[in-house]
Amino acid sequence: MLSDEIYQQLAALVGDKKITREATELSYWGKDSTSLIANAAAIIFPQNIEQLQAVVQLANREKIALVPSAGRTGLSGGAVAAQGELVVSLRDMNSIKQFNAVDRTVVCEAGVITADLQAYAEQQGLYYPVDFASSGSSLIGGNISTNAGGIKVLKYGMTRQWVAGLKVVTGAGDILDMNKSLLKNNTGYDLQQLLIGAEGTLGFIAEATMRLTRSPENLTVLLLAVPSLSALLQVLAHFQAGMELTAFEFFSEQALQKVTTQLQLQRPCDEVGQYYTLIEFEAKDEAIVDQAMALFEQCLEQGIALDGVMSQSQAQYQSLWRLREEISSVLAQWQPFKHDLSVPPSQQGEFLLEVEKIISELAPQYQVIWYGHIGDGNVHLNILKPDELNKTDFDLSCKLLSEEIFKHLASYQGSVSAEHGIGLLKKDYLHYSRSDLEIALMKGIKQQFDPNGIMNPGKIFS
Amino acid sequence: MLSDEIYQQLAALVGDKKITREATELSYWGKDSTSLIANAAAIIFPQNIEQLQAVVQLANREKIALVPSAGRTGLSGGAVAAQGELVVSLRDMNSIKQFNAVDRTVVCEAGVITADLQAYAEQQGLYYPVDFASSGSSLIGGNISTNAGGIKVLKYGMTRQWVAGLKVVTGAGDILDMNKSLLKNNTGYDLQQLLIGAEGTLGFIAEATMRLTRSPENLTVLLLAVPSLSALLQVLAHFQAGMELTAFEFFSEQALQKVTTQLQLQRPCDEVGQYYTLIEFEAKDEAIVDQAMALFEQCLEQGIALDGVMSQSQAQYQSLWRLREEISSVLAQWQPFKHDLSVPPSQQGEFLLEVEKIISELAPQYQVIWYGHIGDGNVHLNILKPDELNKTDFDLSCKLLSEEIFKHLASYQGSVSAEHGIGLLKKDYLHYSRSDLEIALMKGIKQQFDPNGIMNPGKIFS
Repeated sequence: MLSDEIYQQLAALVGDKKITREATELSYWGKDSTSLIANAAAIIFPQNIEQLQAVVQLANREKIALVPSAGRTGLSGGAVAAQGELVVSLRDMNSIKQFNAVDRTVVCEAGVITADLQAYAEQQGLYYPVDFASSGSSLIGGNISTNAGGIKVLKYGMTRQWVAGLKVVTGAGDILDMNKSLLKNNTGYDLQQLLIGAEGTLGFIAEATMRLTRSPENLTVLLLAVPSLSALLQVLAHFQAGMELTAFEFFSEQALQKVTTQLQLQRPCDEVGQYYTLIEFEAKDEAIVDQAMALFEQCLEQGIALDGVMSQSQAQYQSLWRLREEISSVLAQWQPFKHDLSVPPSQQGEFLLEVEKIISELAPQYQVIWYGHIGDGNVHLNILKPDELNKTDFDLSCKLLSEEIFKHLASYQGSVSAEHGIGLLKKDYLHYSRSDLEIALMKGIKQQFDPNGIMNPGKIFS
Repeated sequence: MLSDEIYQQLAALVGDKKITREATELSYWGKDSTSLIANAAAIIFPQNIEQLQAVVQLANREKIALVPSAGRTGLSGGAVAAQGELVVSLRDMNSIKQFNAVDRTVVCEAGVITADLQAYAEQQGLYYPVDFASSGSSLIGGNISTNAGGIKVLKYGMTRQWVAGLKVVTGAGDILDMNKSLLKNNTGYDLQQLLIGAEGTLGFIAEATMRLTRSPENLTVLLLAVPSLSALLQVLAHFQAGMELTAFEFFSEQALQKVTTQLQLQRPCDEVGQYYTLIEFEAKDEAIVDQAMALFEQCLEQGIALDGVMSQSQAQYQSLWRLREEISSVLAQWQPFKHDLSVPPSQQGEFLLEVEKIISELAPQYQVIWYGHIGDGNVHLNILKPDELNKTDFDLSCKLLSEEIFKHLASYQGSVSAEHGIGLLKKDYLHYSRSDLEIALMKGIKQQFDPNGIMNPGKIFS
């Protein structure tokens, strides 16, 4: 833990009001959206990159472990201070600093809220396309550190693709100013790619130049009820061959039931499917809408879709999306054990059926809820805790299940964390997706950026 | 140089016919498209990744410096064996191994020729969009090692964006099998990004999983003559705001004159501009063609275009592109001093005028030819050697000029090598685009992958 003397030195760097060790603050700021327990020594809120650098330099001198903290919406414990670390919150470094209309770039401090960047882009007649349920509270610095994905990856890619430049305070306390918005810059190793997705283990993202793009026109969503997983994948192939999509999401009948019941929402269509798809596209003109309708009708004729509805207004578009976006928060009351898996899209059908088989054989009493970004190979597996089971026993049995699931995942060369990162919760599974050699190289690289090992120690790997 | 004993050990790994030290072979295989002189000890042609790994392991034991060699079309000396190195050519590892229609991926060995991958994609009804003048001889492994760009970056990005997985033999002789075609994989540092653009200093690209995409429909090109650089940039802004483009290239009247004269081609339009643009788009339907015509006419009315022609056939499309693509080879007879520069697109106008001013003040006798990918901020500067000057004196004076140009470039935070890489020729200029800290981190990273420093030593940095 932190001595009083060091606490005072830190307070001198940022001002008394920008550091705290009050117990309720520690437990609030010391954790993310997982159920892990915070054990933070103090929380500090630097106001600018100079203060941030001074904190990191002091931490190097005094060998203080730091946990970078952004919107704390993570699901793998990457921002949890579990071992008495100093939490460094980027919350107050939240200005949008420079917009360039020709280059379509904007410089953001790390603490800018995702939704604020989206709104800013819209004011400029442009679009920031990385979007997900927690966009109202997640921060850009956290998005970059976890290479956030979300619901539009199919068309727009991950956060990685939207970073044009990064200003970082490395673990050694140096400022690294990379790329500066160039589209083309083949001058040695592309170091900024290492920081993207490093979960704060190499340094702090202080500032980022983000790319913006053309606003999509008249986004429209088609919800289809489908009879089976194989039908779902056929619908995906049929639509991908037939038109350009901006999103292709799915969820199960069980997920729909829980969301409509809990939130007292109407079911979207008459027929009951095993799964539902949300197919989003830009309805730029009538021809595109006709094409979507034709594809939908072909799916009905082939029996791979049972029913469906296309949004006719912005309100209907929002309410159809709500059925998908509320799933995660509605499921929270069942304290689900979550996995965020990906396999190559062509392997999904086989893989999902295998996972269901494993669970139904080893734990037939557990309810499984699937949803996610099936268009890009990424599914969210949620195993609900039965009421009669306590959380510890449930988690323990799910960990045993996980090992079985991951053995199969590894045979498909899949990812144990498609978009949520490794943090603390997925560390034991990292070896299913990355080889010993890769992990050894990561450790060697960390040593270059963070020689004293003060940056988020114990996250990703030990 | 290589002892007879080691030469025999190498021959035992690949077979007598797959290694040579015959003088003409050494000078042919020991260099790339620069005028640097080869000084290679031997050339070896591994037939598969096992042989490649065995060569690297032997090189580690015996401390033999290796130069990875692909299509040898590089313009920075990255594949030149200048210090008695062993050249390892990937030429014979050239199979296209696996195609997956659902994932739209194809596994290529490093020696697959770019044009062969493009043709293979076309046979599958798909498209490999990275394209440039040397696509007929460049190899995929080389494209990845230099993160090749080219004429379609505006829409499709660089090679980096099309790599879904990489199999590498590291400098330490280990096999690193990364990502395996996943679209989403947030499991620690994205190591494959380091290998992309590393110019063979970390290891050998042995095999890559490349993404393919939808084939563009009816590509059409609009060539415009424009009166000035500022008009050119206004035309770019006007078209970018008005429609989706697949390419936006430019070249100067001097470039056009040299190409039409040397190759006895017709000028594309009556009016003489200071610059010409090639604006490419998908003419999917009549409305898009009308839109392009309307934008063109608006440019004429505003006086920012003087004249123009739109391709009406595949043959005309090809012949208009030829005016741009032949520039580099036509200029070769003037032994030009070349730079491959980028600044943020919004800074191009000011920057180009400054460079012209520097040259006209310091070397008014030199003819300057501009062309390149102005749509993405990347211009190729060619300074022609006057006949009366010998090459050594010319190069020396151009190096002095370069320092002046790069001081200005650095003030725009530009890149000293937008797409050609650093190799040997741009090493002295690296510090204009990358900080001492970045270069130190690169060296530390190289140490992790290549502890004995055998991989392409002296390239990028010393």
